[in-house]
Amino acid sequence: MNDVLERAARIQPLDTDAMEQARVRQQQLTKPAGSLGRLEELAIQVAGIRQNPVPLIERKAVIVMAGDHGVTSEGVSAYPSVVTAQMVHNFLRGGAAINALAKHAGADVIVVDVGVAAEIQHPDLLSRKVAPGTANMAAGPAMTREQMLQAIQVGFEILDTLVGQGIDLVATGDMGIGNTTASSAITAALTQAPVALVTGHGTGIDDEQLAHKVQVIERALARNTPDPRDPLDVLMKVGGLEIAGLVGVIVAAASHRIPVVIDGFISGAAALVAVELQPAIGAYLFAGHSSVEPGHRLILDKLGLVPLLDLRLRLGEGTGAVLAMNIIEAALHAHREMATFAEAGVSTSLPETLP
Amino acid sequence: MNDVLERAARIQPLDTDAMEQARVRQQQLTKPAGSLGRLEELAIQVAGIRQNPVPLIERKAVIVMAGDHGVTSEGVSAYPSVVTAQMVHNFLRGGAAINALAKHAGADVIVVDVGVAAEIQHPDLLSRKVAPGTANMAAGPAMTREQMLQAIQVGFEILDTLVGQGIDLVATGDMGIGNTTASSAITAALTQAPVALVTGHGTGIDDEQLAHKVQVIERALARNTPDPRDPLDVLMKVGGLEIAGLVGVIVAAASHRIPVVIDGFISGAAALVAVELQPAIGAYLFAGHSSVEPGHRLILDKLGLVPLLDLRLRLGEGTGAVLAMNIIEAALHAHREMATFAEAGVSTSLPETLP
Repeated sequence: MNDVLERAARIQPLDTDAMEQARVRQQQLTKPAGSLGRLEELAIQVAGIRQNPVPLIERKAVIVMAGDHGVTSEGVSAYPSVVTAQMVHNFLRGGAAINALAKHAGADVIVVDVGVAAEIQHPDLLSRKVAPGTANMAAGPAMTREQMLQAIQVGFEILDTLVGQGIDLVATGDMGIGNTTASSAITAALTQAPVALVTGHGTGIDDEQLAHKVQVIERALARNTPDPRDPLDVLMKVGGLEIAGLVGVIVAAASHRIPVVIDGFISGAAALVAVELQPAIGAYLFAGHSSVEPGHRLILDKLGLVPLLDLRLRLGEGTGAVLAMNIIEAALHAHREMATFAEAGVSTSLPETLP
Repeated sequence: MNDVLERAARIQPLDTDAMEQARVRQQQLTKPAGSLGRLEELAIQVAGIRQNPVPLIERKAVIVMAGDHGVTSEGVSAYPSVVTAQMVHNFLRGGAAINALAKHAGADVIVVDVGVAAEIQHPDLLSRKVAPGTANMAAGPAMTREQMLQAIQVGFEILDTLVGQGIDLVATGDMGIGNTTASSAITAALTQAPVALVTGHGTGIDDEQLAHKVQVIERALARNTPDPRDPLDVLMKVGGLEIAGLVGVIVAAASHRIPVVIDGFISGAAALVAVELQPAIGAYLFAGHSSVEPGHRLILDKLGLVPLLDLRLRLGEGTGAVLAMNIIEAALHAHREMATFAEAGVSTSLPETLP
């Protein structure tokens, strides 16, 4: 507990000097001022994060945290829990969407078992199982406080190791049948929005199943009464092990001044918990994309983030986040490689109407 | 003339068999059906274009057509015409935004002088100058019919050569001080929308200059009375040499079944002319991004295209298009590389609520 709060408390705001130098550089590059729009803002934000006016990305990873959810016994998902382990195997064999998209983005895929309800052995798997899934939140707290803190520590440990290996851009990903239920519960608890407003079809339930899912979440919130002013209480009672792991990743990344691209709704719920713990973390975040899950929009509004992509993805795994990494890198390449007006001998304004 | 219309007439619709095979494949991949949103649609569309259910992109290029505009003598732009040639030099030295972004995307930059009002010599420049800029459209037709057809032929020739070299994805780019004026005039003429609705600040004029720009375009349209049912008449009278060149690129690409990523407003105006010539071309197009120029939205609506990116770019050069190439490639990688449910041993639906 102390470790989480201490680490969050040490997070610094962005480096305004580096940002100002990056802003000045943008104005000197051979383009009309502001004409690269968000690419300019991305470069300036990364400059502030990295304390470097002309930052470079050299090594990227997406961390896919996997965990199961006891609440699936309430019939909230279109898929059975066993799919979590099956998909983890798929990640490890390289057959999932995140593998193809991360390879295309040049990002390593780090697969973490922080709470899958099955034994999984694989040389490339980071086995950090805190528990074989959460308890059913409709009947009591999803996790014990100890489990939640342990799962956050898993995120710390993995991010710390990656930083030691030279990573400078990280994306968050998730796998866990039932985790849109947990994310909706977190979002409802922390924003105090009605459950029905922040709950969606997940991987593909129908309208009747959706009404049931809303009722289950309402029951879980009534049963556990998470304290909206205490994000860790919310996380423990209605969250998930993989969501707690992602909270750890996000807090640790900000503490190392590493930019974090958050994926969709599940990563967004983790980011919301992290920013409620420490508002300074918000400046380290990039919203990869806009999920079709209705709660995601509310989270992004609350975090003040505008998604980089809107491709109607609703898969998770980190897919939207790794796609967006490319845009951030593109912004940094333009920022670094473009010539200035002086270097290129290009007129900066209108001295005459014809040459 | 005959050549343009003949070539446009030969363009075929997409291959529905290849698209159906791609659609079936998407349903078998290890993800909830539809959860990759637009990435699924992109893969299916490219399958139809390439007549290949599992297409691959191996070689990409952005074609940057450069030309000057006589209408700049009316004071419609924030920059003098001389900047066109200066920026072409910048492209050739590799210092512009398009160089950095195309390099990041793995696309060749093909720089074409189809109508720059200055002599430019460079080993990497494709010198295909039809005229040293257009005539002032506010005083008469921007081009002769001969010049317009010649500029379209330049597009044909360049695209044909690139196809011979194995290109399978092309982006359109432009450079030409004054070319938002021509694009607004084309858009107003072809859509019959009021000039003020389709005219914007270009590279950065103020509101007073914008009002003047609108008046100049209204004068050009009144003077030339382009026929809205004849896209080549519109192109000739109020277009530009680089826009005509891009019309050639787009028509030729569709005739070779090559997908085309159009950039912002100027490329959009060229695409509008091409699709008015031959509606079947629309299916070969991808809108790279949403420009801040107001006329661009109208063009995209008319073409039924939803932009892949919205990053508030307003630079041209092909910058938004090359950024979007990455998303199309990502879609194809996921389509090709993901495992099917059968291959991965993943459950496809809900046989039970717990394993």
